[in-house]
Amino acid sequence: MAGSSYGTIFRVSTWGESHGKGVGVVIDGCPAGLYLNESMIQPYMNRRKPGTTKYSTPRKEDDEIEILSGVFEGRTTGTPISLMVHNKTQRSQDYSEIASYYRPGHADYTFNQKYGFRDYRGGGRSSGRETIARVAGGAVASLILKTIGIEVSAYTKAIGPIEIDYNKCSKENIFKSPLYMPDLDASSKAEDYLMETMQKQDSAGGIAECIISGVPAGIGETVFEKLDANLAKGIMSIGSVKGVEIGAGFNAATMLGSQDNDNFYTNESGIHKFSNNAGGILGGLSDGSEIILRAAFKPTPSISATQQTITTNGENINVSIKGRHDPIIVPRGVVVVESMAAMTVLDLLFLNMSARMDKFTEFYKK
Amino acid sequence: MAGSSYGTIFRVSTWGESHGKGVGVVIDGCPAGLYLNESMIQPYMNRRKPGTTKYSTPRKEDDEIEILSGVFEGRTTGTPISLMVHNKTQRSQDYSEIASYYRPGHADYTFNQKYGFRDYRGGGRSSGRETIARVAGGAVASLILKTIGIEVSAYTKAIGPIEIDYNKCSKENIFKSPLYMPDLDASSKAEDYLMETMQKQDSAGGIAECIISGVPAGIGETVFEKLDANLAKGIMSIGSVKGVEIGAGFNAATMLGSQDNDNFYTNESGIHKFSNNAGGILGGLSDGSEIILRAAFKPTPSISATQQTITTNGENINVSIKGRHDPIIVPRGVVVVESMAAMTVLDLLFLNMSARMDKFTEFYKK
Amino acid sequence: MAGSSYGTIFRVSTWGESHGKGVGVVIDGCPAGLYLNESMIQPYMNRRKPGTTKYSTPRKEDDEIEILSGVFEGRTTGTPISLMVHNKTQRSQDYSEIASYYRPGHADYTFNQKYGFRDYRGGGRSSGRETIARVAGGAVASLILKTIGIEVSAYTKAIGPIEIDYNKCSKENIFKSPLYMPDLDASSKAEDYLMETMQKQDSAGGIAECIISGVPAGIGETVFEKLDANLAKGIMSIGSVKGVEIGAGFNAATMLGSQDNDNFYTNESGIHKFSNNAGGILGGLSDGSEIILRAAFKPTPSISATQQTITTNGENINVSIKGRHDPIIVPRGVVVVESMAAMTVLDLLFLNMSARMDKFTEFYKK
Amino acid sequence: MAGSSYGTIFRVSTWGESHGKGVGVVIDGCPAGLYLNESMIQPYMNRRKPGTTKYSTPRKEDDEIEILSGVFEGRTTGTPISLMVHNKTQRSQDYSEIASYYRPGHADYTFNQKYGFRDYRGGGRSSGRETIARVAGGAVASLILKTIGIEVSAYTKAIGPIEIDYNKCSKENIFKSPLYMPDLDASSKAEDYLMETMQKQDSAGGIAECIISGVPAGIGETVFEKLDANLAKGIMSIGSVKGVEIGAGFNAATMLGSQDNDNFYTNESGIHKFSNNAGGILGGLSDGSEIILRAAFKPTPSISATQQTITTNGENINVSIKGRHDPIIVPRGVVVVESMAAMTVLDLLFLNMSARMDKFTEFYKK
Repeated sequence: MAGSSYGTIFRVSTWGESHGKGVGVVIDGCPAGLYLNESMIQPYMNRRKPGTTKYSTPRKEDDEIEILSGVFEGRTTGTPISLMVHNKTQRSQDYSEIASYYRPGHADYTFNQKYGFRDYRGGGRSSGRETIARVAGGAVASLILKTIGIEVSAYTKAIGPIEIDYNKCSKENIFKSPLYMPDLDASSKAEDYLMETMQKQDSAGGIAECIISGVPAGIGETVFEKLDANLAKGIMSIGSVKGVEIGAGFNAATMLGSQDNDNFYTNESGIHKFSNNAGGILGGLSDGSEIILRAAFKPTPSISATQQTITTNGENINVSIKGRHDPIIVPRGVVVVESMAAMTVLDLLFLNMSARMDKFTEFYKK
Repeated sequence: MAGSSYGTIFRVSTWGESHGKGVGVVIDGCPAGLYLNESMIQPYMNRRKPGTTKYSTPRKEDDEIEILSGVFEGRTTGTPISLMVHNKTQRSQDYSEIASYYRPGHADYTFNQKYGFRDYRGGGRSSGRETIARVAGGAVASLILKTIGIEVSAYTKAIGPIEIDYNKCSKENIFKSPLYMPDLDASSKAEDYLMETMQKQDSAGGIAECIISGVPAGIGETVFEKLDANLAKGIMSIGSVKGVEIGAGFNAATMLGSQDNDNFYTNESGIHKFSNNAGGILGGLSDGSEIILRAAFKPTPSISATQQTITTNGENINVSIKGRHDPIIVPRGVVVVESMAAMTVLDLLFLNMSARMDKFTEFYKK
Repeated sequence: MAGSSYGTIFRVSTWGESHGKGVGVVIDGCPAGLYLNESMIQPYMNRRKPGTTKYSTPRKEDDEIEILSGVFEGRTTGTPISLMVHNKTQRSQDYSEIASYYRPGHADYTFNQKYGFRDYRGGGRSSGRETIARVAGGAVASLILKTIGIEVSAYTKAIGPIEIDYNKCSKENIFKSPLYMPDLDASSKAEDYLMETMQKQDSAGGIAECIISGVPAGIGETVFEKLDANLAKGIMSIGSVKGVEIGAGFNAATMLGSQDNDNFYTNESGIHKFSNNAGGILGGLSDGSEIILRAAFKPTPSISATQQTITTNGENINVSIKGRHDPIIVPRGVVVVESMAAMTVLDLLFLNMSARMDKFTEFYKK
Repeated sequence: MAGSSYGTIFRVSTWGESHGKGVGVVIDGCPAGLYLNESMIQPYMNRRKPGTTKYSTPRKEDDEIEILSGVFEGRTTGTPISLMVHNKTQRSQDYSEIASYYRPGHADYTFNQKYGFRDYRGGGRSSGRETIARVAGGAVASLILKTIGIEVSAYTKAIGPIEIDYNKCSKENIFKSPLYMPDLDASSKAEDYLMETMQKQDSAGGIAECIISGVPAGIGETVFEKLDANLAKGIMSIGSVKGVEIGAGFNAATMLGSQDNDNFYTNESGIHKFSNNAGGILGGLSDGSEIILRAAFKPTPSISATQQTITTNGENINVSIKGRHDPIIVPRGVVVVESMAAMTVLDLLFLNMSARMDKFTEFYKK
């Protein structure tokens, strides 16, 4: 099936492999009239780009975004926006060995089982480079959301055992940490932890949290197309994510109803809740509070430590994955989480426009 | 938007409110030739039916399923299967009070914001009765999956602070526990916990785990339509679910790569993994192991204890939700989790049929 | 696949067979706040109901529509509207003979080939009774369209060799003709033609034309989701329709560009065209003129005259289809054409709401 | 909305404008293992390429296709295939004048109304260059279809008043005619007709017919996703097509049932029909006969003859469209018709794979 498209009205279709000619995305359903150029998208690309710190792979990738269609005289035309990043460092020779076996924790085995063979160069389509296209799509979605005051902001909440309390941090510090971890003391400890992990030829996992502010109440569709259901799909579709939770999340399982329920109150500035265990979503619809979600990332599966696996010929062997890989996925994954959240919310905002007869007739009647 | 449909090839479209004429589902895309009658679906319905134990609402609901179309001479015809349960106990008078305010933890406020008004009788469309349609759809999906040896089995893993280790339990015990908790000692403790909670006019949360066995490797689509992404959406779309995780889930965030990676080995009986932290899914595709997922349910939002909220006119008030409600959602939710998982896996099995040229030409060539 | 759903935002999912318990439709994506009750839908149902004239089958069918969900206190709630017509005259014994052979011009053979067997009672799912669900969905769509001044109106343009010129007719006469043919002289001749045809144990074909007025310019999506493309699909999906054309249609093939192009002009009342060969659609988008489409219906395939066919066992036989059937499909099909057109235009109106940034920000900004 | 995607399982997403950087298509859902390289696609591209005869625009366009992803070691990998043609002759200065007014018969006015402005260079997204992407997608679909013996073949049936009888032609002659009109005498007359038309500064319309052979019986889905309904949408979505018909098409409207019904018979070589008025489709499903459809193309809207229109400022003016344009669309449109037909049939073949329980269990059971 066509598995590389996301969204109903704002729909992105992505393509590209680690070692092909490039990676790209076609954004269809972007409204006409958005001011857009490469320099507005590039900052998002740079946040997932490798090689910017010692905690990401030192591979040099420029990841320069190019707009191929859909923009005329500086504005989107309402027709598909094709965006592409050329792959510059295609060194297939590096990957000749891994063609012969299945790397633990990777999709090598499952791709082979599904398709009969696989593009083994750097993971092919299952490479993290695929997320370039997500970030490009998310950048455009974020730019649209900003026009109505919606901000999507993710950060690194935990690396291995080191977890921070966002309420005690300043949002501005996110970009001061090489790990996008706004508690700078914790960030520094996490750096030490990662150094140790790398010395052990191992890798670490972590948690990203995403906060979406400014979403009006009532966004999302009931039953299957709930806002949280769609966010869960979008976030879980990111490689290495093994868990998603909203608001109190798994903690809600041990709370009492009297603790978990967010009581409402009203004052001169509007309707509020005393708490936000719901993470801004009730019955699948936004409730006007901040939307809060967390994604658990497993450790990078590529490690130098010795592992057992099998060859494509079915022999048991020991392997040690060569090359220098990210010791952790989360910091580069933060902008990917943001991107999926932005695209999801935007699509549901578009779908919500026809929810009510009064707004429909107002839109079309003159 | 149309939010009440689920699935691409095996697609269910559900309808119905708590106090309307009934609740139903149209299943489109069911293959022709499946033996099907009401008595094959009813056992699934009975598992989510209220009033069967003291830990569920004592409302009397028969929830008798009726097949309205799509079956001829005992077999499905390939055309839509319309299934319906009539609502028998519609007592709108019970709900006159809650029309006037927004219950904390419920969708009252968000429905009002989205649609301008709401069907306040028993929660209307956001009522748990909506899940009748999911279970009916899931029953048909499960029956199809069984024909190729796939079993979907969920149970109650945790209630409040009481959590069990499934590896130490017998699967057969699931149905011996009124809470579908196969560690019968723990089940008994959980019963005590729920009794206490009820006496405190409060409610409890918990965790359901679902195990899907027999899925061949390679099911799921890459990038956005991954098996885990679709499972996450399906499960998170269930009312009250606030978190979903696969395999090691959130625990993976604190593991090292060397711990988390499931190493492969082969022996005479085939290809295996030493562990299953991946929960049976690698790169979004099934890896042939058991698929394992967990859903965190928040406590039932309807509690008798006093809460603060606002009226639809914007006044601050105190409320105590009348009536006798489920003190916990999980036990009745177990079969709903199973249903969403079954429908999700089946749809991806159908979509996988065109993944390879060799299988395509074999299917059509004669 | 799920083939019984239509539409993206305004999506109908239909079910039911000729001789099952009934026929129904679930309408998902209807905005909240539309005034709706059974008596507003029933007049549309009555227009396709058989037995009202001697030119339709004398089978007695009430086709009484029942609302099962989605309406509260007289208004739609934004959640699925389930509509059903119970089948009252299920006489399976009438159909025992046709179980054994494939009727020429019917779907008997193709259903058998696709599904391995078929519900042979009255054509099962391929029966014209399936269109009940289309008309119910179309009725709701038409009621919504009327709120913004859009009228969808179809009529019988041709029966066999008798064709009328709508420009010389009064629209009011449509309902004065038992054949929905507003040229009453021609209608009378067509009645004679049908009487002759019936006496010859034969059946006739014809053409329905549909005019949609009041659609603002710019509705439809470019490339694949053009307004005319979607209309063509919707109309061609009606059983017995073998051709669809827009505006000048097939005649455009023999025109010169200078004849076919509709020149624009403007005056105090706005922008106009001197002609409407485009049928109100340019580049797949509405141009503000009347949208005009025609559907060619083949003759009713059920005829009493002797035909050759084969049995399900593969023997050559002669058959004469028993029973009294419609000698023509068009008059009862007129409201079905209208219904498909209404649902198509409405869905594209909803989709169009997010076409422009300025309107999007206006919608959400406060 | 996202209007530039087509298909459910075999899904193409297209992008690009007349004067942007290029035109492309992302094909998602292509099975793994298809042998594919640029030279297998290029012949299809060349058939729609302009400048090959005097009856097409003399603009020089190479339209060289490039594979950007989805192919590894000569075979498709099952992941998205990104194909692109670079635009080489972008001369925006040519189009400065038409920015100021709406060309009759073009989408200038409707694009402006929908999007608020338009990319006026060569028609932007509504340019015929958009069909490059359709043909690239259709080429891949056709290559897959050939592996199971399905051939899709279109030709020019009529140009202006000159119409041919395909039954009296040799299929091989299609490519001997510069107009793809296999009756070479008629082709020669059509050339004369076009020369005259060009001298009159005018343009001509015509009809393309498409024949699909080798499709097994039972392909298509019932009710809304019928084979003919999907073909109608695909074909009508081609710019300039104003009508689509299947088999006897509009002629069926004047036939009697006894004439139109195709009687069945059987002999040692299988089940056959005495005629094929159904055009190979009964009840929306293929019946094993040749599938026959026709598309009516309007004359090229760009003509040098004087026309009336309005400026974007709302003034009435006379215009004469400069430049040398195709005097007729049909010959270059033939391969576009073929492409849409191929993609449509392929998608329905994929969807049909899950139609029956016996085939499903056979596929997965071992």
